[in-house]
Amino acid sequence: MTLVLTPLPGLPLVQPGDDLAALVEAGLARAGLILQDGDILVLAQKIVSKAEGRMVSLADVTPGPRATVLAEETQKDPRLVELILRESREVVRHRLGLIVVEHRLGFVCANAGIDHSNVAEGDDQYLLLPEDPDGSAARLRATLEAASGARLGIAIIDSHGRAWRTGTAGVTIGLSGLPGLVDLRGREDLFGYELQFSEVGAADELAAAASLVMGQAAEGTPVVHVRGFPYPLREAALPELLREKERDMFR
Amino acid sequence: MTLVLTPLPGLPLVQPGDDLAALVEAGLARAGLILQDGDILVLAQKIVSKAEGRMVSLADVTPGPRATVLAEETQKDPRLVELILRESREVVRHRLGLIVVEHRLGFVCANAGIDHSNVAEGDDQYLLLPEDPDGSAARLRATLEAASGARLGIAIIDSHGRAWRTGTAGVTIGLSGLPGLVDLRGREDLFGYELQFSEVGAADELAAAASLVMGQAAEGTPVVHVRGFPYPLREAALPELLREKERDMFR
Repeated sequence: MTLVLTPLPGLPLVQPGDDLAALVEAGLARAGLILQDGDILVLAQKIVSKAEGRMVSLADVTPGPRATVLAEETQKDPRLVELILRESREVVRHRLGLIVVEHRLGFVCANAGIDHSNVAEGDDQYLLLPEDPDGSAARLRATLEAASGARLGIAIIDSHGRAWRTGTAGVTIGLSGLPGLVDLRGREDLFGYELQFSEVGAADELAAAASLVMGQAAEGTPVVHVRGFPYPLREAALPELLREKERDMFR
Repeated sequence: MTLVLTPLPGLPLVQPGDDLAALVEAGLARAGLILQDGDILVLAQKIVSKAEGRMVSLADVTPGPRATVLAEETQKDPRLVELILRESREVVRHRLGLIVVEHRLGFVCANAGIDHSNVAEGDDQYLLLPEDPDGSAARLRATLEAASGARLGIAIIDSHGRAWRTGTAGVTIGLSGLPGLVDLRGREDLFGYELQFSEVGAADELAAAASLVMGQAAEGTPVVHVRGFPYPLREAALPELLREKERDMFR
């Protein structure tokens, strides 16, 4: 089946308190798309965070002693480091300019996903990730499903750096109504062998695909409509995409 | 721009010596697709390896002393471990049932990408990765460009496990005519900030997208046509997607 990813045109800059469902519906209408069973909407975390008012001004942050030390070691703003630590369970690695953490949501990423891009004109405004991306996805899904009558999936994505390879790739940080993993283990291939590496990170592959069409700069389009996702939709949540620390050989 | 990924229907089981360009052209015709400038074809490594005759019978492999020790530690077949070591620069991690290596091509992956799925009925046939996937991609591209008159990109992909996250995701292991990375650093976002994490692993995001539509089991479709790749095509090779060992915090 053909997979079609359509970035929604004409979305305005999102502001705190904005109704994301209404913005998505308007974008779908501009694209001439009518939601159907099995469709998925992929949202950049940035617009979810902004709608949820997750901005923090560095002027309001007082770094603690741990942030002060880590800021010295990484040569980052101690107030930003304080924010990173507050959003994290632990620091996994750090070096000049970079702090890799286990985020409080469970994934490993740089700088706790805190970004200042595209937020506001003030130089000290930073944007935290959504408080509960799975919950944000579920709420948006409920609204859009009620309005459309279609069975939908929602993924909220971010761009993460990776071990071993250069460049970022889109990954899912919150989802509702689509599988994170698709377990093909036990299925047989053409000759009857059991497939070996066949637990597929389907929601992350989808996130990467959507990230590709979103772009990241001024011309970016933070919502992508997906038709043709090849696996059955089901209930799921972020933890299924996260490897337990104890089972991770690269922590 | 809309991104459209179409798996090519009706491809036969690939055999050693098969003409991949002819198979792709026949699949395009069955899908009703005529190649245009900017189109990309994504191929599963498996069919490239098979066409290039990269099968090895374990009956022909004699494990050396290093393979014998590692096979004991991982409880894998010593002859398979010998193949893994021959295909690798170094063992990065190992545990029961799993050997993570730096492949001779430079990327980090499990079991050197060696697989026995879908190869042949004989139980001891294993399939190595293509000898030179960048070269394979370049040759296929030259043939398809000459026949079509269109400027194309070719990516050869595999599914790799990941640090920190469960599930596999498609990654590019060979490419020709499309960017591996797209460097947005220095571009400004909507408010004039420099984007921070803006070197995008575009070829890997594309690989993930194509992997999603390929499937992995009997119904798999190992060639995907892509229209709407959002970045300019250019010459590139695999090393730009690989982080140097010395700069990798997770090796």
